[in-house]
Amino acid sequence: MATNYKQPDHKLTLIPGPIEFSDSVLGAMATPSQAHTSPEFVKTFQSVLQNLRKVFKSTDSDAQGYVVAGSGTLGWDVAGANLIEKGDKVLVLSTGFFSDNFAEALKVYDAQVDVVTAPVGDVLPFDQIEQQLKKEKYTAVTITHVDTSTAVVSDVAKISEIVKKVSPETLIVVDGVCSIGSETIEFDKWGIDFALTASQKALGTPAGLSVFFASSRAVQKAVNKEKPAAFFASLKKWTPIMKAYESGSAAYFATPAIQTITALKVSLDEIVGRGVDSTISKHEEASTNFKNELEALGIKLVPVNRDVAAHGLTAAYFPEGVNGPDFLGKLASKGFVVAGGIHKELVGKYFRVGHMGFSIYEGHVDRLLAAIKETLKELK
Amino acid sequence: MATNYKQPDHKLTLIPGPIEFSDSVLGAMATPSQAHTSPEFVKTFQSVLQNLRKVFKSTDSDAQGYVVAGSGTLGWDVAGANLIEKGDKVLVLSTGFFSDNFAEALKVYDAQVDVVTAPVGDVLPFDQIEQQLKKEKYTAVTITHVDTSTAVVSDVAKISEIVKKVSPETLIVVDGVCSIGSETIEFDKWGIDFALTASQKALGTPAGLSVFFASSRAVQKAVNKEKPAAFFASLKKWTPIMKAYESGSAAYFATPAIQTITALKVSLDEIVGRGVDSTISKHEEASTNFKNELEALGIKLVPVNRDVAAHGLTAAYFPEGVNGPDFLGKLASKGFVVAGGIHKELVGKYFRVGHMGFSIYEGHVDRLLAAIKETLKELK
Repeated sequence: MATNYKQPDHKLTLIPGPIEFSDSVLGAMATPSQAHTSPEFVKTFQSVLQNLRKVFKSTDSDAQGYVVAGSGTLGWDVAGANLIEKGDKVLVLSTGFFSDNFAEALKVYDAQVDVVTAPVGDVLPFDQIEQQLKKEKYTAVTITHVDTSTAVVSDVAKISEIVKKVSPETLIVVDGVCSIGSETIEFDKWGIDFALTASQKALGTPAGLSVFFASSRAVQKAVNKEKPAAFFASLKKWTPIMKAYESGSAAYFATPAIQTITALKVSLDEIVGRGVDSTISKHEEASTNFKNELEALGIKLVPVNRDVAAHGLTAAYFPEGVNGPDFLGKLASKGFVVAGGIHKELVGKYFRVGHMGFSIYEGHVDRLLAAIKETLKELK
Repeated sequence: MATNYKQPDHKLTLIPGPIEFSDSVLGAMATPSQAHTSPEFVKTFQSVLQNLRKVFKSTDSDAQGYVVAGSGTLGWDVAGANLIEKGDKVLVLSTGFFSDNFAEALKVYDAQVDVVTAPVGDVLPFDQIEQQLKKEKYTAVTITHVDTSTAVVSDVAKISEIVKKVSPETLIVVDGVCSIGSETIEFDKWGIDFALTASQKALGTPAGLSVFFASSRAVQKAVNKEKPAAFFASLKKWTPIMKAYESGSAAYFATPAIQTITALKVSLDEIVGRGVDSTISKHEEASTNFKNELEALGIKLVPVNRDVAAHGLTAAYFPEGVNGPDFLGKLASKGFVVAGGIHKELVGKYFRVGHMGFSIYEGHVDRLLAAIKETLKELK
């Protein structure tokens, strides 16, 4: 794998997911075939499900982690199909493109969705959230922990506290696709009911896995739901399967993505080996350094201040006088792939850099920074 | 990879999926990170979507192939959420466990499902199918091309002919999870509307991809459906994405499983390189040899005759006087993993061997046969 990895035509992928993967993770992707019921795979999957509890910070044995072939998006369907009944009211706290798409997904499951939208690059004021929760009775509230379109991080702890105070029955649903593994999350302590992510971000594994975690009351609601609104995304189907694998035995509902789950095992071992808290601190440090350096170059960040700026990625405006496509093209020619912007109000005006997982331990971000400096000299 | 592959603790996985994978396919699983919008990945995905047309035998440019992170099961949701309206009648032709589960999945999408069930190990008589189609107006009929629980193959060509004659408006939906790549399928010629499979069977790629193909009228129905009943499984969402990648440009709905799709590219290149028809013939040959040898050992097949016996796997009763778990255990100790039975009426009485893809080119099936002979001597 190391050989492949160093191929001269491999560009360092520093987008906000898929991220770069460690050689061990890539090696695990090439694990020879195993039966989904084999003792080897059962052991692998058991380790993954056990380690997810450490990553999500949950010790409640009635809460449950899930890993299903899919993408982060599938997690929205899981929430919609299992936690919502037709006509239920859901409050979506929107900080960008992905929050709005979550709202769209919930409407497919016949939720009545109220979307309250933060100004671009900012979060919603806490009192606005509190007022909204007092106005209506919501079955669930969704928080996009980090909206990958704006790189804004929401204060899930504080919002959860407000929900618990005003409307403790309301389920707290967290889209953690761009936060889990790079931002502090306390599933049990904050009283989260459902949090979803995907393999290709801070979990450090190739794309192809939908990863989520449900609280005891969310699991109960889902398994007792008379008619889940989806088959493949049914928690009623998946809960006994995950419980079986986690306890060390095989069960079948749909064939798991054996190689990608094996890679996730390796990556979670790396994360848990370093310590989850230490991993989060390292992301904060890498993020702060990178953002400081960009600002020192006169580059303005999309988040309105550092308190609302995420640590797994940076969204920043193209420097004045610099043409966006030229900037991205120059970086590509130097061997770095960073992402354009996708927020509808800002598209074409900004770029996004992912600094998650492997890359922050391997100096990739420093190398990118050097390339950005070079590029700016060349373009100005 | 070759090194890994030859690890002494690697058992040859000869179950009806996941199958063994070629070294090149496993190597592709370890492809270093690429952005889902990168020119490298666009080229890979384009090749996959183009080659799928060859595998499904479709030249209709209005028909469309799809590859989505998931499993074969997700294909049932895609059929249910996009091709069926609430209350629509669907006829399920059942030849086993998987046919029945497809029926259950369709009920989740509020289809009114009639299941007609063949005797275990057999298919339905054509006149029974014809009578049923004359009795009711069905929006769709589902055919499980090969039911992996019984290893029975249905005559999709002939059934399609009956459907076209009696009820040409009825959509023909084929579960090809255990057939596509190992049995002849003629998507256009037979007038199939929707056929679904998964990566880990005869397509020769690790689990994690739901692969399906929709006819022009199925695509039209799906994209014009006012409200698809799922978000992640929505053809309205995925159709423009697949069209973009197939025509050589990137588009985003949910992050594709880049490494597994890259592995699928390698595997489809291998299949198309050998020729799709030649690949099917090779499966027929390997299957016939294996079944002949088993019968010569006095082992009885589950399918009632060779006309209804699938070519990608064999289901056979444990020989008289031989304890099933002992038989499977002995084979495992010799380095071979084969599967137990899962059909509720026969569970514990039979076993299943997959002989698809890589293994039939590498002599794995002959090695298994030698191990079966040895095992029988030891146990009798």
